[in-house]
Amino acid sequence: MRVAYDDFTTIDWIHDYADERQRIRRIQRMPGVAGQIAIIFDWAQSWAVVLAVGIAAGIVAGGSDIASQWLGDIKEGYCSTAFYLSRNFCCWGLDDMEECTDWIPWNRASFIVGYFFYILFALMFATTAAYLVKTFAPYAEGSGIPEVKTILGGFVIRHYLGLETLVIKTVTLVLSTSAGLSLGKEGPLVHISCCIGNIIPRVFQKFKRNEAKMREILSAASSAGISVAFGAPIGGVVFAMEEMSYYFSSDTMWHSFFCAMAAAVALKLMDPFRTEKLVVFQVSYDRGWHGFEMFFYMLLGILGGLWGAFFIKMNLRLAAFRKTSWLRVYPVYEVIVVCLLTAIVGYLNIFTRVQSPELLANLFRECDSGANYHGLCDNGGVGLRVFALLSASGVKGLLTILTFGLAIPAGIFMPSMVIGALFGRALGMMVQAWQVNHPGFWLFSSCLPDVPCVTPGSYAMVGAAAFMGGVTRMTVSLVIIMFELTGALTYVLPIMIVVMTSKWVGDAFGKEGIFDGIILLCGYPFLDDKEEYRLNTTASQVMTPVEDLVVVTATGNTLDSLDSLLRETHYKGYPVVNSLRDMMLVGYISRTELRYAIDEARKRNLPGNTPAGNVVPILENTPAFIEFRLWMDQTPITVSHRFPMDQVIVIFRRLGVRYVLCTQHGQLLGLITKKDVLKHLASIEHPDEQEATS
Amino acid sequence: MRVAYDDFTTIDWIHDYADERQRIRRIQRMPGVAGQIAIIFDWAQSWAVVLAVGIAAGIVAGGSDIASQWLGDIKEGYCSTAFYLSRNFCCWGLDDMEECTDWIPWNRASFIVGYFFYILFALMFATTAAYLVKTFAPYAEGSGIPEVKTILGGFVIRHYLGLETLVIKTVTLVLSTSAGLSLGKEGPLVHISCCIGNIIPRVFQKFKRNEAKMREILSAASSAGISVAFGAPIGGVVFAMEEMSYYFSSDTMWHSFFCAMAAAVALKLMDPFRTEKLVVFQVSYDRGWHGFEMFFYMLLGILGGLWGAFFIKMNLRLAAFRKTSWLRVYPVYEVIVVCLLTAIVGYLNIFTRVQSPELLANLFRECDSGANYHGLCDNGGVGLRVFALLSASGVKGLLTILTFGLAIPAGIFMPSMVIGALFGRALGMMVQAWQVNHPGFWLFSSCLPDVPCVTPGSYAMVGAAAFMGGVTRMTVSLVIIMFELTGALTYVLPIMIVVMTSKWVGDAFGKEGIFDGIILLCGYPFLDDKEEYRLNTTASQVMTPVEDLVVVTATGNTLDSLDSLLRETHYKGYPVVNSLRDMMLVGYISRTELRYAIDEARKRNLPGNTPAGNVVPILENTPAFIEFRLWMDQTPITVSHRFPMDQVIVIFRRLGVRYVLCTQHGQLLGLITKKDVLKHLASIEHPDEQEATS
Repeated sequence: MRVAYDDFTTIDWIHDYADERQRIRRIQRMPGVAGQIAIIFDWAQSWAVVLAVGIAAGIVAGGSDIASQWLGDIKEGYCSTAFYLSRNFCCWGLDDMEECTDWIPWNRASFIVGYFFYILFALMFATTAAYLVKTFAPYAEGSGIPEVKTILGGFVIRHYLGLETLVIKTVTLVLSTSAGLSLGKEGPLVHISCCIGNIIPRVFQKFKRNEAKMREILSAASSAGISVAFGAPIGGVVFAMEEMSYYFSSDTMWHSFFCAMAAAVALKLMDPFRTEKLVVFQVSYDRGWHGFEMFFYMLLGILGGLWGAFFIKMNLRLAAFRKTSWLRVYPVYEVIVVCLLTAIVGYLNIFTRVQSPELLANLFRECDSGANYHGLCDNGGVGLRVFALLSASGVKGLLTILTFGLAIPAGIFMPSMVIGALFGRALGMMVQAWQVNHPGFWLFSSCLPDVPCVTPGSYAMVGAAAFMGGVTRMTVSLVIIMFELTGALTYVLPIMIVVMTSKWVGDAFGKEGIFDGIILLCGYPFLDDKEEYRLNTTASQVMTPVEDLVVVTATGNTLDSLDSLLRETHYKGYPVVNSLRDMMLVGYISRTELRYAIDEARKRNLPGNTPAGNVVPILENTPAFIEFRLWMDQTPITVSHRFPMDQVIVIFRRLGVRYVLCTQHGQLLGLITKKDVLKHLASIEHPDEQEATS
Repeated sequence: MRVAYDDFTTIDWIHDYADERQRIRRIQRMPGVAGQIAIIFDWAQSWAVVLAVGIAAGIVAGGSDIASQWLGDIKEGYCSTAFYLSRNFCCWGLDDMEECTDWIPWNRASFIVGYFFYILFALMFATTAAYLVKTFAPYAEGSGIPEVKTILGGFVIRHYLGLETLVIKTVTLVLSTSAGLSLGKEGPLVHISCCIGNIIPRVFQKFKRNEAKMREILSAASSAGISVAFGAPIGGVVFAMEEMSYYFSSDTMWHSFFCAMAAAVALKLMDPFRTEKLVVFQVSYDRGWHGFEMFFYMLLGILGGLWGAFFIKMNLRLAAFRKTSWLRVYPVYEVIVVCLLTAIVGYLNIFTRVQSPELLANLFRECDSGANYHGLCDNGGVGLRVFALLSASGVKGLLTILTFGLAIPAGIFMPSMVIGALFGRALGMMVQAWQVNHPGFWLFSSCLPDVPCVTPGSYAMVGAAAFMGGVTRMTVSLVIIMFELTGALTYVLPIMIVVMTSKWVGDAFGKEGIFDGIILLCGYPFLDDKEEYRLNTTASQVMTPVEDLVVVTATGNTLDSLDSLLRETHYKGYPVVNSLRDMMLVGYISRTELRYAIDEARKRNLPGNTPAGNVVPILENTPAFIEFRLWMDQTPITVSHRFPMDQVIVIFRRLGVRYVLCTQHGQLLGLITKKDVLKHLASIEHPDEQEATS
């Protein structure tokens, strides 16, 4: 018998899965046709749920795309035929946007008017977003990925994936992206998808009553989030597997794939940008890459790693400062200040003014096609444009450090990519200029004469991957996302090498990516599955010894004595021993379950001196007896007290238990909880901090 | 201290990883610059190994492609300018192969001569292959995937991935594919890659001495195998994860990705077919699919599932018959008979005569491009061509049932795809004819007038996926492989739905795919990670009770007594208890380790009555004492005897242990080994068989 988990506790995977197996066994035992139907119905539930989650995620993403396109355009002008149309739809059918007369830019009158309206709208959007978040759903702020990761790892935060979070985060995400702040919608979309993936399955008892099963759907939902954010269903599945999930069975993978596909198809059918393309930033380069370019690509990889390490350090410091200083009282003002700064500085440079997806698409493009994206393809004046690109990259970088962590929904994927793409394009243009002016230089010997050799767009693409890799430390999923995003199959090898370089360089300054950094900073109870821990300690050094534990004896207790035990102590659970004399371990009962057993007994109006214990007493004629065996974990995982700690960690991670009991010859010696393990790991990694606090 | 595992034993993951952690700890403790270099060197080893494995796999695959192309062509003719050229290279530069005069087909003289040479060469190749396999490397036969899967699951088969297997399997794979037998090179290429992945890392102590670490490289190697077989690096990684590996950490994934990419690049640089394409069966359809076609696609899915179930049943029956009957004495003759049958029947139908990759590429193609692939695109005579396709599909199907399992290297991926593609193309042509003749039928209302509506090539592609899915029960990896194979991004959704349908239909007749079926049939000790076991039993019902166990006492033994224990009993290991009176569990010592301890003592010429035991005795002045504590597992995993069996299975799978000891209050009650678990599962799944044998 299982009672729902309390808020802010860890779930017990092994027991939840045991419950699930029992549930299925009950269904399978049902006789005849009804049983057959029940089995099929049960099986179809999961598929129906992931289908619904995927479609809903696609619709929400499409809707927010349409809304933020319109709001983003409003900052720069309005449609004279119908105010509710975005620039694209206002000028529908025209090949050259410049010829569109229906769209009236604010700066038609004067530069100052345009500047003013731009700042005004940006401030309005950002302030509304910050106010909504702070007032209605504080959980909606930030990227959400670290928290979702912690939840997938087995932690329970009741309202983090609730309906109010879903609604407020969707609305404020639209507002904050439209405000032109240096943030992305990708991380928040994963959070939003997971909210959907939390709300929909609760219709079914199967998921509502089983947190471990719920997490399978959440894994699928997170892949749907990446799928709609980047138009990358396969990347989404691999992302969910590599970055998010704790356990990822092949069933979950199949469900995730289906969910990600459903989301991608729903988004494609909505076609918010009316481009009819599945690949968002489709590039088609006329020429491949040359061997000598690998040198510059790797330079981008190194810079991406350095940037990532710098960004993580600065951003986490800022986050720590924000948490502890006077700043934490004024979250809305902080948003206003950063937004003002972004708008004032951003308007002056075309590369910081245009919306990120459009900018990224143009940075990736080759110049040959005739069009001139933001002046990127002008002849001559390379120096000036390189300066504009580099300064945009720098400004975006600083603004992103300030922005990521504000009290509004904010993702880090897109800004990282934009910063890297700006930098990469600048480097590419420099290399191109070098090659054009010195075609005889030995480095360029593989270039054919009178044919363009260097493609600056490819540097932008590689730079985007490098900088995003440095910040997030993603690996395979990043390569696949870049591949699905651009369709540039020939560039898989350089992208891969660059992502690798960037990760290695970044790792040299600290193993954690930004999300893991936030998890550590916020002290979320997340036991990283990726890190290899090498410890010298044994279980006995980490366990809470039996002397410091409160144990329950299998016999000799009454309703009142247990009740007062619960009132006087605040442990999450109690080992059950045969007697205090022999200390033979019998089981373990959690606080919630013991509470439930007592409340049930109270409901039956049993007197306070009713005996309570593990087993039915030998005297069968006892009028009433509270048997807590049903609620007790009768077969807890036990280890010898000499067990090496690194193997204890393997048990915690692989089996997903909440606690492990240490015994010797059957006698209880101590208890290790997941929190003990995390504390022990922290004390080993940062011995000084531990000393300071203890 | 660890001794190498015996042949045909199970490895102990948890201990191997503990060893690895200790090894790294030792390196990290090394002082100064030498230590730094040692760390980097250690880290670089894994990358260097997977790079080397990938490149080698690519080269072997490319070389065997070139060789089998030439040998395959020799059956039909020869190059008059240079006999060692394949038809493609002989006619290099000509657009139309028919115009090539340098290539002399055998049947230029008469049909009979061509027929004769075709059969002659086929027989020669097949006989040589079978002879080589039987004489030099019996492990080279078959697909190898079930065995590799078992090895990755932790089983040790010494020579299965040895050098002789590598050489003989590569040579005979070329011969058997050239013989025109109904088999594929994909599975064997995975086996060959894994041989490479087994040989190369053994240069380094790190891998040589650690079977668990070795398996990480083998996972990477298996993804390289799929990568070169299908030109699908991402599909390879997902295949390794979904189908092959037991544990797949994100580190392993990253290594696998690198290995798969290195292999794909090496193969592309070799460019064995001189096509300069990364995508093997690149298709580019002018039009997408229509809603009504989903009905026919799903029909293909259902048929694929039915075919898969039928194929598995028949093929496994044949395999069982082959094992137990007179047939097993004549493996080479069997190959000759099947080859004769294949050649005689195959030559008469163009669709069974051409080599599989060429056929598949043409079946996938659209007709619009003007060319006429094997008459597929003729106008009129649809009935006859549909008949030819269907009969080819049927003949291929029957031949594949006979072929898969012969004493030659033989994969099942390609024949499954070909059978499905032939069937799908036939269905597509029928639908097309129907639509062209009755354009007004309500089903075709979404077709535009006077424009081709149905693309038979897409039916071939979908059919290939459906039939391969039915036989292998692959899911995500199959969709990704199809996607990388054809580049048909718009068809991902139909392919996915069809693969799903095919799997569901197939699963209704039996959960196991062909590889799992072979594993079960051959009784390999593989604990399936995918299956969810729901058992009512507890540990005490499965364990070998202590009365039937041979235990070693911690004290009171001598060198001679232990020696005779080893001679008289044949258990793989012995629990160590404090004394026979209290039966308190102290540890577990495996046979190999105890043997080693005794042999070491014998080398030191200790007398037979030297006391031997777990701890140094209190009498320190004992002249000699054999302490087997060093070789003993001092902290074995223990569970309560009331532990539910399904949770015991979780422990076996997730922790990768070889044995679990059952205790109550510290007393040894019994022992469960991986084999006990497998036997128990078999007895539950097939209760009748168990009764018959016991």
